[in-house]
Amino acid sequence: MTDSVLSEPPAGFQSVDPSTGATWGDTFPVHGADEVDSACAAAEAAFDAYRSTDRETRAAFLERIGAEIMGIGDDLIVTAMRESGLPRARLEGERGRTVGQLKLFADVVRRGAWLGLRIDPALPDRQPLPRPDLRLRMIPLGPVAVFGASNFPLAFSTAGGDTASALAAGCPVVVKGHPAHPATGALVANAIHRAVDACGLPAGVFGHLSGPGNELGSALVRDPRIAAVGFTGSRGGGLALVRIAQERPVPIPVYAEMSSINPVVLAPAALRARGAALGSAFVQSLTMGAGQFCTNPGLVLAIEGEGLDAFVGAARAALTQAAGQTMLTGGIHSAYRAGIEALQGHSAVETIAQGEVGEGVASGDAAFFATDAAAFLSDSALGHEVFGPSSLLVRCRDEEELHQVLRVAEGQLTATIQMDPSDEAFAAGLIPILERKAGRILANGWPTGVEVTHAMVHGGPFPATSDARTTSVGSLAIDRFLRPVAYQNLAEALLPPELRGDGNGAPRLVDGKPA
Amino acid sequence: MTDSVLSEPPAGFQSVDPSTGATWGDTFPVHGADEVDSACAAAEAAFDAYRSTDRETRAAFLERIGAEIMGIGDDLIVTAMRESGLPRARLEGERGRTVGQLKLFADVVRRGAWLGLRIDPALPDRQPLPRPDLRLRMIPLGPVAVFGASNFPLAFSTAGGDTASALAAGCPVVVKGHPAHPATGALVANAIHRAVDACGLPAGVFGHLSGPGNELGSALVRDPRIAAVGFTGSRGGGLALVRIAQERPVPIPVYAEMSSINPVVLAPAALRARGAALGSAFVQSLTMGAGQFCTNPGLVLAIEGEGLDAFVGAARAALTQAAGQTMLTGGIHSAYRAGIEALQGHSAVETIAQGEVGEGVASGDAAFFATDAAAFLSDSALGHEVFGPSSLLVRCRDEEELHQVLRVAEGQLTATIQMDPSDEAFAAGLIPILERKAGRILANGWPTGVEVTHAMVHGGPFPATSDARTTSVGSLAIDRFLRPVAYQNLAEALLPPELRGDGNGAPRLVDGKPA
Repeated sequence: MTDSVLSEPPAGFQSVDPSTGATWGDTFPVHGADEVDSACAAAEAAFDAYRSTDRETRAAFLERIGAEIMGIGDDLIVTAMRESGLPRARLEGERGRTVGQLKLFADVVRRGAWLGLRIDPALPDRQPLPRPDLRLRMIPLGPVAVFGASNFPLAFSTAGGDTASALAAGCPVVVKGHPAHPATGALVANAIHRAVDACGLPAGVFGHLSGPGNELGSALVRDPRIAAVGFTGSRGGGLALVRIAQERPVPIPVYAEMSSINPVVLAPAALRARGAALGSAFVQSLTMGAGQFCTNPGLVLAIEGEGLDAFVGAARAALTQAAGQTMLTGGIHSAYRAGIEALQGHSAVETIAQGEVGEGVASGDAAFFATDAAAFLSDSALGHEVFGPSSLLVRCRDEEELHQVLRVAEGQLTATIQMDPSDEAFAAGLIPILERKAGRILANGWPTGVEVTHAMVHGGPFPATSDARTTSVGSLAIDRFLRPVAYQNLAEALLPPELRGDGNGAPRLVDGKPA
Repeated sequence: MTDSVLSEPPAGFQSVDPSTGATWGDTFPVHGADEVDSACAAAEAAFDAYRSTDRETRAAFLERIGAEIMGIGDDLIVTAMRESGLPRARLEGERGRTVGQLKLFADVVRRGAWLGLRIDPALPDRQPLPRPDLRLRMIPLGPVAVFGASNFPLAFSTAGGDTASALAAGCPVVVKGHPAHPATGALVANAIHRAVDACGLPAGVFGHLSGPGNELGSALVRDPRIAAVGFTGSRGGGLALVRIAQERPVPIPVYAEMSSINPVVLAPAALRARGAALGSAFVQSLTMGAGQFCTNPGLVLAIEGEGLDAFVGAARAALTQAAGQTMLTGGIHSAYRAGIEALQGHSAVETIAQGEVGEGVASGDAAFFATDAAAFLSDSALGHEVFGPSSLLVRCRDEEELHQVLRVAEGQLTATIQMDPSDEAFAAGLIPILERKAGRILANGWPTGVEVTHAMVHGGPFPATSDARTTSVGSLAIDRFLRPVAYQNLAEALLPPELRGDGNGAPRLVDGKPA
């Protein structure tokens, strides 16, 4: 990519209906180097004013964004349906989650624990030297680049979790909208612009860029004014951004949520007691939203035996009847087809079942495959994500072999154990292994379905994410965009308000203890 | 580097007395690939047992290390003096800090706030879907590689801050001892081994590797069992480790504290009122420990005027009489000489004063230079660290030019304002700039002298460190070696003890509020 390419963009691009492949609606601008520059300049210019806002102002702003999004009305849902192929109920739920996480971060901002306030008072009489007054707070990193995700056009896109947590931290945000839903993105971006205006904030607090190619995002991450990146998408895309960020004169953190196959372990007693019920529940989780969740159960592990046959039989029956669903984009559909064709053609893989092919040009038919542990251990490609409603059963001879498969598996967002009370010893042996592989460990549930709460971790060891020390969902996500600063012997008037005298209500540690 | 080079190391290496350049004492092993492999295998084997220790066991272990270090007695001080050239009082103080920070982390471990416990109880009646029980804790990353620093043979080396905070987090540690103090390192390593034994912990909780070259450290960072790296040293060394860590199949975090010139701003009223006093106090800070502190004041900024002349005059007088001091190693001394010769030969730099050349082959003579803002802004080399007792005064025309110099300066560990009460508006204008450049902002002190407390930040934007989101000194340093894991709907017996029922005394958030 060169600047001259960026400077002469094509005229515009349109939405695509993934069920037909046809373009429709408004033409959206293809932004280039000039727009990256002006969005980043505005974000940088807004940073000091925005990070100085009091907590109530910032919380009210987040809530106002939510209100403005609701204010768009049904047009938002209809537009997102047409751009994503996702059904109404799913998108209405996703809008609720989007507004809910803005409210969650408003509450987090008000409480102020994220400021991490610490005070070590001066000890003027300490020997051999007096101790100075030391005070610490977390400050925002600077303008954040957020990449909209294809699979959550609302909750993980323009006003999604990365945007909400970065704005909560005090960082201006420049969103690179996902090209699969430009009309949805524009509606939401305008809602945020209205909230910025209504709250009297500088316009640069939020910027929105659109365009179909990768050059725009690369230029954004290279911009020296960008201080951190939030991304949800493919492993290739995430790793490319990480590389660009590391090669900058001043490297910056990239929080990329990339790739996970979310192992589900079927414990022996549970399999014996309810193998068939687990099989049909599994297919329900696998095919939800055309399997396009980061936490989709793409890997099932079990020890050979009678219960496993019942599981496989029920899964086959359920999956064979699963209706094909339109996938998010033609590209995602093609990649999915290539992924399942590779499994179908793999000499060590058996096809258990395939779902119905639905209508439309991008309809993904669900697929369930099986292999054995030896084959899985000898071919790392079998552990790679196939984004969509595909899953692979790995038949293990015994507990030790099942442990071995988990130990060589890559890092994951989630790991699930389906277990009965008598499987407790089996599960206890798994948990130390799973803790090192995943960010969330579930018992007797399915990994799809991510609560937006305080104790949620939506993250995990590489390559599930580029930074296992964080989460991209839940209130802890705000910490990604903060860094500590200590103030030594500063006069009261020069300290930030929350570190003065009695502070302003945020929790503090004084000499390491809650005060 | 190839494995065959690592497999055939030279027989051994000895300590060097930096004041004479002569070798002395025991011969230490040159470790290679085999020893890296066995140390990492032992650390990995010890990890699950060590991370499962209760908080009291782990705290007592940290305290025992401190007791074993004190138990070495004066031999430790005498050995470190001979290897480092540092004086007795400094090393006795450093030993106190080393033991003090082990005690601090013992207290931190006991309190348990680092576990970050969060519980979101199940809501079985929630509509449209029940909410599962979610519980979160922080777990240690895994075995940590720690690189001993040359300039703190005790407090930032074998049992230094990185080791103490990683052990506190529950991570086994493999130290690559600094080759400038192998005898000191061996004494301390043996003290830690005794503490491991005394506390009944697996031997792999602590490993110690020695050798003079860079290959050993590279091999250690490449080992797949290593999960994080702590380093204090040169920018070149730190960046090399970052690169190796990023190129691994599974990248890992590197906490490298690298390079800082720690700007000191002399505010106008303070300069007028006490320019001469500031000049002599500055030289005292500059020359302490032969200027070999990461927080050494290597850059002074002031607006031209009468007070500045008094400052320069007093600094010249004090520095001219400053006795030369033996530097830590011959290599550090050579690099220091090259750095000040480059400044002496720079057409835009004036030499204000040079100190006395002391005895011994590695004696560093202090040096103070001056340039103007225009020259500083036009040559980025003038902003690079010269490790040792050298500093550069940048004369600025006005406040705006001073701001500009700070804005283009690289990231720093510290930034200091020398100010009088009437400089408040001037200081208030600086602080937003300094917050974005440094991890610690001081008023009316000198940056040398780092408290080991809860509110300390010894970190800062690149290239001061490779990760501005953390600190390497103070209790917050434990967070570097932790990551969050969420447990969803796990039976009580399968949860870690601190997330069961009423827990075990560590603070928790329940639905986001302290409980």
